Amino acid sequence: MTKKLKKGTRCTICKAKGENDKAVVYLPHHRLALCKEHFIEWFEKRVEKTIKEFKMFKLDEKILVAVSGGKDSLALWNALTKLGYQADGFYIDLGIGDYSEESKKLSIDFAESIGRKLHIVPMKEEIAPIPEIKQSTKRPACSACGTVKRYYMNKIAKELGYNVVATGHNLDDEVATLFGNTLGWDINYLKRQYPVLQEENGFVRKVKPLCKITEKESALYSFFNNIEYIEYECPFSEGASSIEYKEIWSKIEEKSPGSKLRFYSEFLKKMYPILNTQNKNINVSEIKTCIICGEPSFNEICSVCKLKEKVGIKS
Amino acid sequence: MTKKLKKGTRCTICKAKGENDKAVVYLPHHRLALCKEHFIEWFEKRVEKTIKEFKMFKLDEKILVAVSGGKDSLALWNALTKLGYQADGFYIDLGIGDYSEESKKLSIDFAESIGRKLHIVPMKEEIAPIPEIKQSTKRPACSACGTVKRYYMNKIAKELGYNVVATGHNLDDEVATLFGNTLGWDINYLKRQYPVLQEENGFVRKVKPLCKITEKESALYSFFNNIEYIEYECPFSEGASSIEYKEIWSKIEEKSPGSKLRFYSEFLKKMYPILNTQNKNINVSEIKTCIICGEPSFNEICSVCKLKEKVGIKS
Repeated sequence: MTKKLKKGTRCTICKAKGENDKAVVYLPHHRLALCKEHFIEWFEKRVEKTIKEFKMFKLDEKILVAVSGGKDSLALWNALTKLGYQADGFYIDLGIGDYSEESKKLSIDFAESIGRKLHIVPMKEEIAPIPEIKQSTKRPACSACGTVKRYYMNKIAKELGYNVVATGHNLDDEVATLFGNTLGWDINYLKRQYPVLQEENGFVRKVKPLCKITEKESALYSFFNNIEYIEYECPFSEGASSIEYKEIWSKIEEKSPGSKLRFYSEFLKKMYPILNTQNKNINVSEIKTCIICGEPSFNEICSVCKLKEKVGIKS
Repeated sequence: MTKKLKKGTRCTICKAKGENDKAVVYLPHHRLALCKEHFIEWFEKRVEKTIKEFKMFKLDEKILVAVSGGKDSLALWNALTKLGYQADGFYIDLGIGDYSEESKKLSIDFAESIGRKLHIVPMKEEIAPIPEIKQSTKRPACSACGTVKRYYMNKIAKELGYNVVATGHNLDDEVATLFGNTLGWDINYLKRQYPVLQEENGFVRKVKPLCKITEKESALYSFFNNIEYIEYECPFSEGASSIEYKEIWSKIEEKSPGSKLRFYSEFLKKMYPILNTQNKNINVSEIKTCIICGEPSFNEICSVCKLKEKVGIKS
């Protein structure tokens, strides 16, 4: 992102104000060269604008941020706090060796630095560490991991009285998911590709305030704010198709800056309404209540209670 | 395509018949290894199946094949003829130097070899050679070229009494177009992405019988049938975005054979019907008649008559 910044370029906003600061960032798809201070301001304004555009939440609502210890979730938590929102954190200790140990410590340290609560749920106590679940179920780790994250995030938010769960999914994540769903035209997935999922059937509202922020922008925001985050990926994520899609999209973006944002925004503007004004009857009200834990589920027994059975935990 | 064929692999069909022929082609996304003879048979059956699936035309209809002299249009013409259809050819001499000279000669030779008529329209006489149009209009050559091809193909088919125009667009072409339209979610283009466009408002029916055949398959079919075709691209096509999209899709296909076919077929199956059962009122019946030539047009004067004006031809 910064490589296209010519030496000596002045910050677009400083220049407009008659000031003289040098730009340190160039955002080709926004045609903006910015100094550190104005980049931070730009980033937070963009998050605020996204929250309002999609009516994600209001200032008086209690927000629970799903924190992984990575750049996106910490950048999100930082921006929400600076924007005046009441946002606490929620961390699932997945028990994936050093990766979990380090990301947990970074999350705890960050929570302290901004003076907000961090709720921690240890998988070791709830079910079992992810590597053990992986062995017991003989399924990919990412599958179990996604299941437990969705389940506990929702359950804990309700138990602790939060109105909404915010996740750090960025534009690159959303583009990769949208692209993946477009490859096979999975209508039911495409229909749910929206940065706000309203509260219904035992699910709390879920929002993605970074959906128009790129991965690089959130890394830079964390860097400029001296946020320490875990810099390597989860060891289980290697070879995930989302990584392949992200590579494809990096190339498209490099050739035509703005392509990612266009693909995502135009989908929301043009295709999402078409998908949601018809076929309303598909996959709606199929949600039941798990007969073991009482949480919402597509089956009699929910995926987490099934996981528990598989690793030998009696309910 | 052939590189994944292990030495000594037997033809899947021969094997089933108790014969012993060696395979010369491997089609990973169909999991078929085929000898020359069975590949040709497979190709023609697949074209026939596509014609029937989309109700493109019947045996008693007169078909005009848009011939460029390339592998796709000649493979199509050959297959249609072998399948018993009455297909004649239509060639526009674009006047692009050696490229046009060579492709014209190859088209004429091929027409002779199968004993069918080839109608030739020389741009030089109708308007001007494409390179001159390019200079006069200061627009990309591909834009003028597309305009004149669509116009004359339609006009000549009607004048000569053909029921339907068939073009050689293959799966790679269709995937690149669909992908391009998906990048910005152009609903009006996506709505028309179908291998059959019915006759309406002065347009004849247009069909794409190779829409489920890859570029490599049509090259191989031409090769096995000793069809001589022009092997290089039009000199003006360099840098076209469709070429970039084809590269992206080659990589996706290589990683997951069948991705192209899935992307295209699932679109037709799942998304196309959704797009066409609603918003029927968009862009329909906006078609007028050109006040100069009487051909269908979106404006008072059609694009070809405008081109003629620009190069200084008085109507």
